[in-house]
Amino acid sequence: MSFTLELVIAAGVLAVLYGIVQTAALLRESPGNAKMQEIAAAIQEGAQAYLKRQYTAIAIVGVVVLIALYFLIGGYSAAGFLIGAVLSGAAGFAGMLISVRANVRTAQAASESLAKGLKLAFTSGAITGLLVAGFALIGVAGYYGYLTQVQGLAPADRHVIDGLVSLGFGASLISIFARLGGGIFTKGADVGGDMVGKVEAGIPEDDPRNAATIADNVGDNVGDCAGMAADLFETYAVTTVATMVLAAIFFGGSALLPSIMLLPLAICGVCIITSIIGTFAVRLGKSGSIMGALYQGLIVTGVLSAIALWFLIPALVTEPLTVNAGTPLEKTFDSMSLFYCSMAGLVITALIVMITEYYTGTNFRPVKSVAQASVSGHGTNVIQGLAMSLEATAAPALVIIVGIIVTYNLAGLFGIAIATTAMLSLAGFVVALDAFGPVTDNAGGIAEMAGLPPEVRVTTDALDAVGNTTKAVTKGYAIGSAGLGALVLFAAYTEDLKYFAANATPGSFFDGLGAVAFDLSNPYVVVGLLFGGLLPFLFGGMSMTAVGRAAQSVVVEVRRQFRENPGIMTGEVKPEYGRAVDILTKAAIREMIVPSLLPVASPIVLFFVINAIAGKVDAFACVGAMLMGVIVTGLFVAISMTSGGGAWDNAKKVIEEGFTDSDGVLHGKGSEAHKAAVTGDTVGDPYKDTSGPAVNPMIKITNIVALLLLAVLAQQ
Amino acid sequence: MSFTLELVIAAGVLAVLYGIVQTAALLRESPGNAKMQEIAAAIQEGAQAYLKRQYTAIAIVGVVVLIALYFLIGGYSAAGFLIGAVLSGAAGFAGMLISVRANVRTAQAASESLAKGLKLAFTSGAITGLLVAGFALIGVAGYYGYLTQVQGLAPADRHVIDGLVSLGFGASLISIFARLGGGIFTKGADVGGDMVGKVEAGIPEDDPRNAATIADNVGDNVGDCAGMAADLFETYAVTTVATMVLAAIFFGGSALLPSIMLLPLAICGVCIITSIIGTFAVRLGKSGSIMGALYQGLIVTGVLSAIALWFLIPALVTEPLTVNAGTPLEKTFDSMSLFYCSMAGLVITALIVMITEYYTGTNFRPVKSVAQASVSGHGTNVIQGLAMSLEATAAPALVIIVGIIVTYNLAGLFGIAIATTAMLSLAGFVVALDAFGPVTDNAGGIAEMAGLPPEVRVTTDALDAVGNTTKAVTKGYAIGSAGLGALVLFAAYTEDLKYFAANATPGSFFDGLGAVAFDLSNPYVVVGLLFGGLLPFLFGGMSMTAVGRAAQSVVVEVRRQFRENPGIMTGEVKPEYGRAVDILTKAAIREMIVPSLLPVASPIVLFFVINAIAGKVDAFACVGAMLMGVIVTGLFVAISMTSGGGAWDNAKKVIEEGFTDSDGVLHGKGSEAHKAAVTGDTVGDPYKDTSGPAVNPMIKITNIVALLLLAVLAQQ
Repeated sequence: MSFTLELVIAAGVLAVLYGIVQTAALLRESPGNAKMQEIAAAIQEGAQAYLKRQYTAIAIVGVVVLIALYFLIGGYSAAGFLIGAVLSGAAGFAGMLISVRANVRTAQAASESLAKGLKLAFTSGAITGLLVAGFALIGVAGYYGYLTQVQGLAPADRHVIDGLVSLGFGASLISIFARLGGGIFTKGADVGGDMVGKVEAGIPEDDPRNAATIADNVGDNVGDCAGMAADLFETYAVTTVATMVLAAIFFGGSALLPSIMLLPLAICGVCIITSIIGTFAVRLGKSGSIMGALYQGLIVTGVLSAIALWFLIPALVTEPLTVNAGTPLEKTFDSMSLFYCSMAGLVITALIVMITEYYTGTNFRPVKSVAQASVSGHGTNVIQGLAMSLEATAAPALVIIVGIIVTYNLAGLFGIAIATTAMLSLAGFVVALDAFGPVTDNAGGIAEMAGLPPEVRVTTDALDAVGNTTKAVTKGYAIGSAGLGALVLFAAYTEDLKYFAANATPGSFFDGLGAVAFDLSNPYVVVGLLFGGLLPFLFGGMSMTAVGRAAQSVVVEVRRQFRENPGIMTGEVKPEYGRAVDILTKAAIREMIVPSLLPVASPIVLFFVINAIAGKVDAFACVGAMLMGVIVTGLFVAISMTSGGGAWDNAKKVIEEGFTDSDGVLHGKGSEAHKAAVTGDTVGDPYKDTSGPAVNPMIKITNIVALLLLAVLAQQ
Repeated sequence: MSFTLELVIAAGVLAVLYGIVQTAALLRESPGNAKMQEIAAAIQEGAQAYLKRQYTAIAIVGVVVLIALYFLIGGYSAAGFLIGAVLSGAAGFAGMLISVRANVRTAQAASESLAKGLKLAFTSGAITGLLVAGFALIGVAGYYGYLTQVQGLAPADRHVIDGLVSLGFGASLISIFARLGGGIFTKGADVGGDMVGKVEAGIPEDDPRNAATIADNVGDNVGDCAGMAADLFETYAVTTVATMVLAAIFFGGSALLPSIMLLPLAICGVCIITSIIGTFAVRLGKSGSIMGALYQGLIVTGVLSAIALWFLIPALVTEPLTVNAGTPLEKTFDSMSLFYCSMAGLVITALIVMITEYYTGTNFRPVKSVAQASVSGHGTNVIQGLAMSLEATAAPALVIIVGIIVTYNLAGLFGIAIATTAMLSLAGFVVALDAFGPVTDNAGGIAEMAGLPPEVRVTTDALDAVGNTTKAVTKGYAIGSAGLGALVLFAAYTEDLKYFAANATPGSFFDGLGAVAFDLSNPYVVVGLLFGGLLPFLFGGMSMTAVGRAAQSVVVEVRRQFRENPGIMTGEVKPEYGRAVDILTKAAIREMIVPSLLPVASPIVLFFVINAIAGKVDAFACVGAMLMGVIVTGLFVAISMTSGGGAWDNAKKVIEEGFTDSDGVLHGKGSEAHKAAVTGDTVGDPYKDTSGPAVNPMIKITNIVALLLLAVLAQQ
C-alpha cells in the first residue's frame, strides 16, 4: 500500500513540476513594450499588495481558529487545519502570481496570432490548475501518509479522521474569505469603474483616464484567479477528505480498508496525469474555434481518465464491499460498480458543462432571448435575465438527481462519494479553463490601455468571449460538484454521529444518545431545513450589498480625481490608480468578514439553542437538517446566479458584435439596446462573480463545521 | 355540536350579508362625471370579458379533473372539488365585480376629500375580504355539515376527509390559474404599456393616448383583485381543511372528535365577526396617516379576536388531548396550550406585517438604500433591489422557525395547525388591506385619463403609495401562512400514509407497506428535496418569461396603433383599447396553462418513477420530501420576490416625491435617478405581482395533489 501512496504523492509532485517548467517557459515569452510592462507592473503590484493584506486579515481569524482547534480537539487537528489553510492560501497566491505575468504576455502574443494568444492564456490557466490539484493532493495524501506511516496511526483512527477533516476546514475557511474578499474587490472595481467611466464620463472600458482601471484589472487576478484557485483547492481537498472519512467509517473493520482509503487519492493522482496530457491536446484546429480547441483537451482528459480508472479501481478494490450493513441503506457492490460510479461522475461533469454552455453561450436561446429583451429596454433585459437565471437551475438539478439515484443504486452512499471524487479529479484541467478567462480579460485591458492596434483587441475580445462561457461552465461544474460533495459530507455527519453514539464512553456527551433520526415529520428537522435554507439567501443579500457599497466608494473616488485634477480627462496627467486599489482593498477586507463568519457560526449557534430547548437528539437532528437545507437552497441560488450572470454578460457581447432583432433591426455598440444590455451585465457581475461562487465554499464550510462540532463534543 | 356548526355557517352568512349591504351602499356613491363613467365602463367590460374567458379555459381543465376524481376516488370527492372550484371562482369574480365599480367612485370621492377616498377604497376591499372569508367558511362548514349530518357519515370517515381535501384541491387549482393568468395579464399590460408609452413615446403613465392604458387598469382588477381573492380563498379553505384532516387523524378515537373538528371552523367564524367590527375602526385620525387608520382597524380586529378565542377554545376543548401517542412526537396538551398557539398565530401575523413593512415601506433603510442606489444608475438600482430581496427572506423565516418551535412545544403538530388557522382567520380583514391597493391604483388611472384636477391625483397617489405597502404586507402574510399551512398539509400526508399503511386491506396497494421514514440519510429523500426545491425556481422562471412575452406582444400592438394612426398621438383619435385587452387575454390564458400544471403533475410523475426504480416505500418517502422541498425553496423564492418588488416600487415613489441623496442632491420625477428607479420598478412588477404570489398556491397544490394521490392509491 505504501508504494501506491507514494505514487499518489509523486503524481502531485509531477503536477507541481509541470507548473514550474511551464512557468519558466511562460516567463521566457516577450512581455511586450515598455508601456505594456509598466501597466502590467501596476497590476502586479496592486494584486500582490491586496492579497498580502487579505491573507494577513484572514491569518488573524485563522490563528484564533488554530488555537481553538488545538485545545478543543488536539494537535493533529490543529496541524491539519494549518496545512489546509496554508496550502489553500498558497494555491490562491500562486494563481495570482502566474496570471499577473501571463496577462501582458498574452496581450503581446495576441498581437502576433490568435493561436499564440490562446496557447499562452491556456498555459497560464493550466499552470494554476495543476498547481491547485498538486498542492491539494500532496497536502491530503502527505498528511495522511504522515499520520498513518510516520505516526503509525491506524487508517480509521479518529485522529486521522479529525486531522483530515480539519485540513478540509482550513481549506474552506481560507477559500470563503478569498472568494468573497476577491469577489467584492473585483466587482466593486468593475461596477464602480463602469458606472463613473462608461456612464458618467462617457469614456470606454479600460480607458487609462479612469482611475479605477488598474483596480479593475487587479480584481480579475485577485478575484477570478486567486479566489477561484482557493475555492477549487477547497472543493478538491474537501471532497477527497469526505470520501476518505466515509471509507474509514464504512470499512473500518475490513481488511481492504487501507486500499479503500487510498482509492480517492489514487483516482485524483491518476487524473492529474491525464489532465497534464490533456493540456497538450488544446490546439487551435483548422476551423479556428477556440471553444473547440479547449473542448478537445477536455475530451482527451476525460477519455484517458476513463481508461485509467478502468484499470485502477479493480486493482485497489479486490473483493466485494458492503456498506450500512443491517440498515435499510445496506448495499453490497464490487469494483465494477465503483468504476461505473466514477463514470457517472464524468458524465455528470460533461452534462453540466453542456447545460451551462447552453444557458450562457452566445449561440443558444437563453442568451439570444436576453439580447432580444434588451431591445425593449433595461427593465425587460433584467426580467428576461432573471427568468433565465431561475430556469437555468432545473436541468443541472435533474442531472444531479439522476446522478444520485444511479450511483446510490450502484454502490450505496459510497457510490455517490466516488462519483464526486471522479468529478473533482478533473479539477486540474477544469481550473485551466476557468483561469483562462481572467487572463484574456486582463490582456484585453492591457492592449487597450497601452494603445495597441485595434486588431489586437479584436483577438483578445474573441478569447474573452470564450472566457465568459468557460468561466460560467466551470462555475456550474464547481457548484454541481460542491453540491454532491456536500451530500458526501452530510453522509459523513450522519455516520459520524452513529459512530460517536455507539462508541461513547460512560459520562461523555454522546453517552446514551441513541439513534438520531432526521425524519421530516420531526418539526426540529423542518426548523433545521428552513434555517439552513435561509443562509444562502441571507449570504447572497449581504454579499450583493457589500459589492454595491464597494462600488459606491470607487465612484466617489474616481469622481473626486476627475474633479480635483482636470488634467486627467485631457490625458495630460495620469490618475492616481493606487488610491482606488487602496480604497477597494480596505472595503473588500472589511466587507468579507461578517458574511464569511455566518456559515461558521450558524451550526454551532443552532446546535446550542436547540440543545437548550429540546435536548441533544433534536439538536443533532436539527443541525443535520440545516446542512441539508444549506445544500438545497444553496445549490439553486448558486446555479441561478452564475448562469444568469453569464447569460447577461454574453447578451451584451452578442449586441456588441451586432445583434439583429426579431424585427430585423440591427443593434450594436452604443445603441439603446446595448445600454440596456450593459445594465444587465452590471447586475450580473456580482451575481456571477461574487455572491454565486461564494455560496459554494459556504455550503461546505457549514458541513465541515458541523463535523468538527461532533469531534469537539466527543472530547467532552 | 350541530348547534355550533350552524353558528359557524351563520357567521359565514353574516360576512356575505355584510358584503351585500356594503355593496349596496357603495353603489349609491357618485360614479363621477360622464367621462369617468365611460372609462370605468371600458375597464369593467375588459375585466369581465377576460375573467369569463379565463374561467372558461379553467373550466375545461376542471371538468377533466372532476371526472377523474369521480372515477378514481368517488362522488363525495368530486362534489367537494366542484364546491371548492366554484366558490374559489366566485370569490375571484366577486372581487373583480366590486373593484371595477369601486375604482371610479373612489376617484370621485378622492376629489372631495382624502378621508372619503380612503373610506370608499377600504370599504370595497372589505367587501371582497369578507366575501372571500364568508364563501370559504360556508363552503367548508356547509359541506362538512352535509356529509356528517345529512349523509350521516362519521366526522373522521375517509369520505369526509377525502371530500374536504378535494374541496381544497378545487380551490387550489382555480387559484393557481387565476393568480398566474391574472398576474400575466396585469404585468404584461403594465410592463408593456410603460415600455412603449413612458420610454418610447415619452407620454406619462395612464395617458389616454396609450392603447394599453385600459388593459393596465383591467389588469389591476383581474390580477390584483380577482387573482388575489381566489388565492386567499384557497389559503383560507385549504388551511381549515388541513387542520380538520389532522384533527380527524389525531383524534379519530376520541369522544371530543366532533368538537375538535369544529375548532378550526369556529375560530374562523368568530374572527369573521371581529373582522367586521375591525372594518368600522378604520378611520382617518387627526394625524391624517392612512397607514395609521388601516393599522387601527387591524389592531382592533386582532385584540377582539384574542379575547374571543380566549372564550371559544376552552368551550370546545374541554379535556386534555394527546397526539402521536407512542411515538417520539407524542404530546399532551390542554385548551390553554391551544389558546397560546392561536395567540402565536396572531403574533406571527403581526411580526410578518412589521417586517414586510420595514422592507417595503418608504421610511426605512431598505427602500431608501434602493433609492440611493438609483442615483448611480440602472445597474446599481437593480443590484441593491436584489440584495434587499434576498435579505428580506431571513427575518420572516426566523419568525416562522420560532413559531414552529413554540407551537410544537405547546401542542405538538396540532399546535402548528391551530396557529396557522388563527393566522388565516384574520384573512377577511387582511384581504381588505390588499384589495385596497388596486382600487386606489385604478382610481388614480381614471383620474388621470378623465383629466381631473391634479390635486385629485395627489390624493389618489397618497392612497396608492400606502396601497403598495399594504399589498406587499399582505403578500408576506399570505406566503407566511401558506408556508405554515403547507407544513400542516405535509403532516397530513405523513399521518395519512401511516393510517393507510395500518388499515390496508389484504392485497391493496398499501398492504404490507410498513413504516415510511422520511430520513435525510435516505438518498431518495434527498432526491425528493432537490426535485421539490427546483419547482419554485422553474415555475418562477417560466412565469417571468411569460410576462416578458405578454409585454412584448403589447409593445408590438401599441407601436402598431401609433404608427398606423397618427391621430392617436395628437389626441384626435381614441386608440383601440379593446385590441390590447384582447391580445393580453389570449396571451395570459395561453401562458398560464403549462406552469400551472407543473405542480399538479410533479408529485404524480415523481411517485411513479421512483416507485418503478426503488419501490413503494422509497417512492412515498421521496414524494414526501418533495413536498418539503417545495415548501422550503418556495417560501424563500416567494418572500424574496414580493418584498423585493415592493421595495423597488416604493423606491420609485420615494424619488418621485423628491429624494435627497447622501451628497445632498435632490432627485425628482424625470431625473436620471428616476429613470433607474423605473427600471427597478419594471423588474419588480412580475416579481411581486406574478411569479412571487403564484408560488403561494403552487406550494399548496403540490401538497394537496400528494394527499389525493394517497386517497387514489388507497382505492386500488
